[in-house]
Amino acid sequence: MKEQKETLRRFLQEVWNEGNEDAVDVYLAETYTIFHDPGDVWHGQTLDRDGFKERLRISRAPFPDQCFDIKEMVAEPNRVVAGWFWKGTHKGDLPAFPATGKTINMSGLTIYNFTDGRISGHWQVTDRLGVFQQLTS
Amino acid sequence: MKEQKETLRRFLQEVWNEGNEDAVDVYLAETYTIFHDPGDVWHGQTLDRDGFKERLRISRAPFPDQCFDIKEMVAEPNRVVAGWFWKGTHKGDLPAFPATGKTINMSGLTIYNFTDGRISGHWQVTDRLGVFQQLTS
Repeated sequence: MKEQKETLRRFLQEVWNEGNEDAVDVYLAETYTIFHDPGDVWHGQTLDRDGFKERLRISRAPFPDQCFDIKEMVAEPNRVVAGWFWKGTHKGDLPAFPATGKTINMSGLTIYNFTDGRISGHWQVTDRLGVFQQLTS
Repeated sequence: MKEQKETLRRFLQEVWNEGNEDAVDVYLAETYTIFHDPGDVWHGQTLDRDGFKERLRISRAPFPDQCFDIKEMVAEPNRVVAGWFWKGTHKGDLPAFPATGKTINMSGLTIYNFTDGRISGHWQVTDRLGVFQQLTS
């Protein structure tokens, strides 16, 4: 479980913070399922690695300097939970929200599933209202 | 860890779903800390059992038939994570939202801390935007 926590740390750093698409091939299982993620366009979908890379590009575009900071981790065999803070500068357009240049903060919790040592899906809730309030203030 | 998962199930059922204040004395540690819970009035505070009972009464009043339905659980010694769906009828007033009579659905994830077998705090994120959208639609 310690190893899976470390894999998740590297995945969040290399894939989400740095936007390294090659790292998707290293950390992701053949398919990745977004089991629950209210507000995420891909909620309920199963993606292959190319589909995940497209999700990564589209999701990172409005906040190219985004950074996840892991605050809490809880693990069982094949499941790692992360409680995180997130920060990003709103440099690209979001639906209904053209780029504001604001620094946006968010928190969330995610259960990551592992299959044969690779990350194969998640169940997530983020504080979308906090983001909405910052964008409209 | 199986025992702590079962304790958490009973706590959510008896305390939050049924509003049984006596059960607080059974399941709660001497103090309870809300480490992280954006939007919760008690975010950042440490409560004794009487303080927790007051939080329970105030939180349940707008949704007296509220019900947590646990969908996911992940545990380590002294920490249990629950991923949950929640449903309640909006029968009492909320700040800025007088009772609408609507059935409101919400999801969230919570890390519960245990101390000597009793629940001593949480780190939580809920989908507040989903609730806001249902209240204003």
